Amino acid sequence: MNALQKLNSANVSGKFICVGLDTDPKKIPSLLSTHPNPTVEFNKKIIEATKEFAADYKLNLAFYESEGITGIKNLEETLSFIPKNILSIADGKRGDIGNTSEMYAKSVFDYFKFDSATLNPFMGKDSLAPFLSRTDKLNFILALTSNPGSADFQKLHLKSGEYLFQYLIKKVNSWNENQNCGIVFGATNISELKDNIEIINNLPLLIPGVGAQDGNPEELSKLLFSNGIKTFLINVSRAILYKSSAENFAEEAKNEIVRLTKIISQNLH
Amino acid sequence: MNALQKLNSANVSGKFICVGLDTDPKKIPSLLSTHPNPTVEFNKKIIEATKEFAADYKLNLAFYESEGITGIKNLEETLSFIPKNILSIADGKRGDIGNTSEMYAKSVFDYFKFDSATLNPFMGKDSLAPFLSRTDKLNFILALTSNPGSADFQKLHLKSGEYLFQYLIKKVNSWNENQNCGIVFGATNISELKDNIEIINNLPLLIPGVGAQDGNPEELSKLLFSNGIKTFLINVSRAILYKSSAENFAEEAKNEIVRLTKIISQNLH
Repeated sequence: MNALQKLNSANVSGKFICVGLDTDPKKIPSLLSTHPNPTVEFNKKIIEATKEFAADYKLNLAFYESEGITGIKNLEETLSFIPKNILSIADGKRGDIGNTSEMYAKSVFDYFKFDSATLNPFMGKDSLAPFLSRTDKLNFILALTSNPGSADFQKLHLKSGEYLFQYLIKKVNSWNENQNCGIVFGATNISELKDNIEIINNLPLLIPGVGAQDGNPEELSKLLFSNGIKTFLINVSRAILYKSSAENFAEEAKNEIVRLTKIISQNLH
Repeated sequence: MNALQKLNSANVSGKFICVGLDTDPKKIPSLLSTHPNPTVEFNKKIIEATKEFAADYKLNLAFYESEGITGIKNLEETLSFIPKNILSIADGKRGDIGNTSEMYAKSVFDYFKFDSATLNPFMGKDSLAPFLSRTDKLNFILALTSNPGSADFQKLHLKSGEYLFQYLIKKVNSWNENQNCGIVFGATNISELKDNIEIINNLPLLIPGVGAQDGNPEELSKLLFSNGIKTFLINVSRAILYKSSAENFAEEAKNEIVRLTKIISQNLH
């Protein structure tokens, strides 16, 4: 299965939650502190407990890079626990000139063998080309992010009258010849999502901002399904990973993804 | 010395060339192929040959990440060869929501101990905050890049009449409370550099695009010095690293940085 097929396969099974493995060693339940590798053990337990319900796993590269070589080893080992039929996303928001972007694509797709990546489009189309040429992968390009700073540039008004992020979404549609593009659109901007459903034009959506960032999953799924949008991932990281720090943390993580999946899929008719 | 002091110290000594260690294993002289670690040996020889003339070393993270764990080890070992009084730049163009950006800052500043980083501002001020709070570091924020795609978004006309990159440069000036911001401005956009000298307002400049990307170092340095701008780095990567693939490749790399430094400093009065 290619990346889009994995996503579709999850979505048609009613799975929409992207489990964000933003694993912070300081937040791992203390009962794992005596384990030889708490981060990997934690990720393993979370994946085992949630894999029946997860639409994908998104590994936030920064959290692994912060520990240098150990972190990169942890990243590699964590990837080995993800079942091959479940989409894996390298969340690194990369973007650079052509020959450098080629190296980033090599890293995430050839070395680590991720199915998918998040990309920052600020440097323009040629900076994304080495990713867009990978027909079996899926590239989620930042459009409107979930943080307060999304207003700083993404919501600037262009001379043409539209917002920068709107212009960008149209560009992503024009770049999607290989059916391997999606966009990142924050759940904290739900009214903007509503207003721009048409220009999004069925691009797969990666939606951060539910959970610790207060996006509302019920309102979100209602909006998406009522507009016929059925290809999307709602990312939840901290609210699943750190739901509990007790011995049954993995069970509680599972309960949380089940609860969120129910909230979302109840609006799917 | 903090990062800005290292940069100033280089510049007042007439050193302006940033040696870009975009080390591609496929381009390393074949005579090193029998060495146990060609990448590290190549970087070591390049640094030894050029350190008397280099204003800084910029490590392009993508080239190291493309080789996974081996690459990260090479990155770490390469950093150990850079003299402590010379500025080191992590060129990763990072940028993400606050808690993730904090992890990137931890990686480049605390784990690898770089002096400086390149950052992508697309996600807004809060995405850069963990870098901007590091008063001893130097953050080069993308403004107008050297690639053709810089026209795609950076040169969009805003409703206010200015280009996006111009608006951005003004923002960077307003974020520079800790005197730890600079901008990336491509040498392939020399007329734009000329037109925007005033709004750049003496922010330190990291200027890519000379060498393989055809920016003109003479024209560039004339423009900068004649406008009183004396705090800048002109990045050259491939044109120094791969100047020669013969046995004397390091000597030829040195000759190239000396040649470029002369071209630039002849305009310094």
